[in-house]
Amino acid sequence: MPSVPNVKLNNGKEMPLVGFGLWKVNNDTCADTVYNAIKVGYRLFDGACDYGNEKESGEGVARAIKEGLVKREELFIVSKLWNSFHDKEQVKPICKKQLADWGVDYFDLYVIHFPIALKYVDPKVRYPPSWQDADGKITPSKAPIQDTYAAMEELYDEGLIKAIGISNFNGALILDLERYCKHVPQALQIEHHPYLVQKDLVELCKSRGIAVTAYSSFGPQSFVELDMASAKSTELLFDNKTVKEIAEKHKKSPAQVLLRWATQREVAVIPKSNNKDRLAANLDVCAFDLEKGEIEAISGLDKGLRFNNPLNYGIPTPIFA
Amino acid sequence: MPSVPNVKLNNGKEMPLVGFGLWKVNNDTCADTVYNAIKVGYRLFDGACDYGNEKESGEGVARAIKEGLVKREELFIVSKLWNSFHDKEQVKPICKKQLADWGVDYFDLYVIHFPIALKYVDPKVRYPPSWQDADGKITPSKAPIQDTYAAMEELYDEGLIKAIGISNFNGALILDLERYCKHVPQALQIEHHPYLVQKDLVELCKSRGIAVTAYSSFGPQSFVELDMASAKSTELLFDNKTVKEIAEKHKKSPAQVLLRWATQREVAVIPKSNNKDRLAANLDVCAFDLEKGEIEAISGLDKGLRFNNPLNYGIPTPIFA
Repeated sequence: MPSVPNVKLNNGKEMPLVGFGLWKVNNDTCADTVYNAIKVGYRLFDGACDYGNEKESGEGVARAIKEGLVKREELFIVSKLWNSFHDKEQVKPICKKQLADWGVDYFDLYVIHFPIALKYVDPKVRYPPSWQDADGKITPSKAPIQDTYAAMEELYDEGLIKAIGISNFNGALILDLERYCKHVPQALQIEHHPYLVQKDLVELCKSRGIAVTAYSSFGPQSFVELDMASAKSTELLFDNKTVKEIAEKHKKSPAQVLLRWATQREVAVIPKSNNKDRLAANLDVCAFDLEKGEIEAISGLDKGLRFNNPLNYGIPTPIFA
Repeated sequence: MPSVPNVKLNNGKEMPLVGFGLWKVNNDTCADTVYNAIKVGYRLFDGACDYGNEKESGEGVARAIKEGLVKREELFIVSKLWNSFHDKEQVKPICKKQLADWGVDYFDLYVIHFPIALKYVDPKVRYPPSWQDADGKITPSKAPIQDTYAAMEELYDEGLIKAIGISNFNGALILDLERYCKHVPQALQIEHHPYLVQKDLVELCKSRGIAVTAYSSFGPQSFVELDMASAKSTELLFDNKTVKEIAEKHKKSPAQVLLRWATQREVAVIPKSNNKDRLAANLDVCAFDLEKGEIEAISGLDKGLRFNNPLNYGIPTPIFA
């Protein structure tokens, strides 16, 4: 099995640099996918309320544990607080529901999915709630991030979560958060690929000991599937000359080069694949090293191009404006 | 005198769409410059603690009032809270000092200059304090924006300021602010020019009735003077073909076209000039209209290029990351 290095978090815990992302993993195949990923060697699973497959993910985990493939403490299970549960009194109940769905009694990392607070939706009415309220409208909640974050800190202090994460936060929000938080977050998850390098944000996090996890490491790829215009009109990173030439030189796939470009700079990655060979190949991305010049050449593809912007889905919440 | 339209703020007050910016106006000429600007027809003056010329600006205002050129209530005086005064107990004392410097008993608009909180510096020790603390180091304060903003609201409720502004805030901060504020801010001031259009941020503000004021309307121009590398390597907007052709067509200067491009979209501007003719020309920018296609052509120059980033001055505070 490929050996995956850990990154040490600012609270002393360790997080694998390569994990498996559960976004867009179908419910009918999810339990098998997670089980197979564990078999191949994945230890970190990046889930979320919004992905709608936490029960199935938990089934895959349970089967692997039952068969002795892995122990709970060898896994690093990540989940996320959805926008509809930012009101401080909703944070613990929903976290407990998510723990029950996974069938575990703690998350290794629990992440505020977006700096967006939406009106509460009772899980009995609709779960996962997605962006709309019970009436189908997009309705903000008045919960400031400060209140939501304090509720996350309570989960941490109670041991329900072993690390606090934030996602889709920018520099100004992080600088404000560090003024009011009791515990600096352990991790930030952001869209990060050669078209969106976000050097200043990554450096800010490094200076604070906040681990950075990249999502959508392959850039446009994930969003072409969603029929997003800006993704369809952009050259795929797999087809990019710079990426391809570096891949050929190292006898690796472009995907592996993109993942190594991140991990070699200590940015964790969470690729997803439904294909068993690619599943293994994606995990095996720390056994070769890119040269400094190659890393810089890939970083040089930066064009500040973001795909996962709520505005691109018609959600009028410009968190990246 | 040129007629300058007002923009109606969300609290019913009116703000001139064109004003005079006091950044980099020298102390020795400042009183005369303000006095002459009033004579030419300027009514809005955009000052700040950090510009270090509030006393002199106030002298210019006092002379104009004394000579009967203008009444206080015909002026719209803007000032800004500097980073070193974000601690909530410092907001009122420094605002009162700034009012005394200007020689007025209220500001028409008082603005949080940056979403950055720095350690308090006693005005007796150094004023304006700039970015460093009393020991010459850049030291953050723990004052969250929520606390600072609440102190601004107190000034507003007491009538010391007639409108609350924020500056250099991004979309995510504004969305968070509106969760905890009592009064939505009346105005946002941002760097805004054809190389940095910030369409989503401007639209967010419009949807909330927050007036937008552009600073650095001429783009690189102001930063070439500061010897900033990114400004020196960028084509001046005054030399840009699109801007020049539109200017020639309308028999206006490129500067006037740039200001009209903003004001015609209801974005207020605050140009500065030490030259008397340009002072008058800059104010006279609402007497002609650009065509829709011309506005779009100028907006098409956007390249997300920001000059006024603390990182560009060596200040390690990545609010725009």
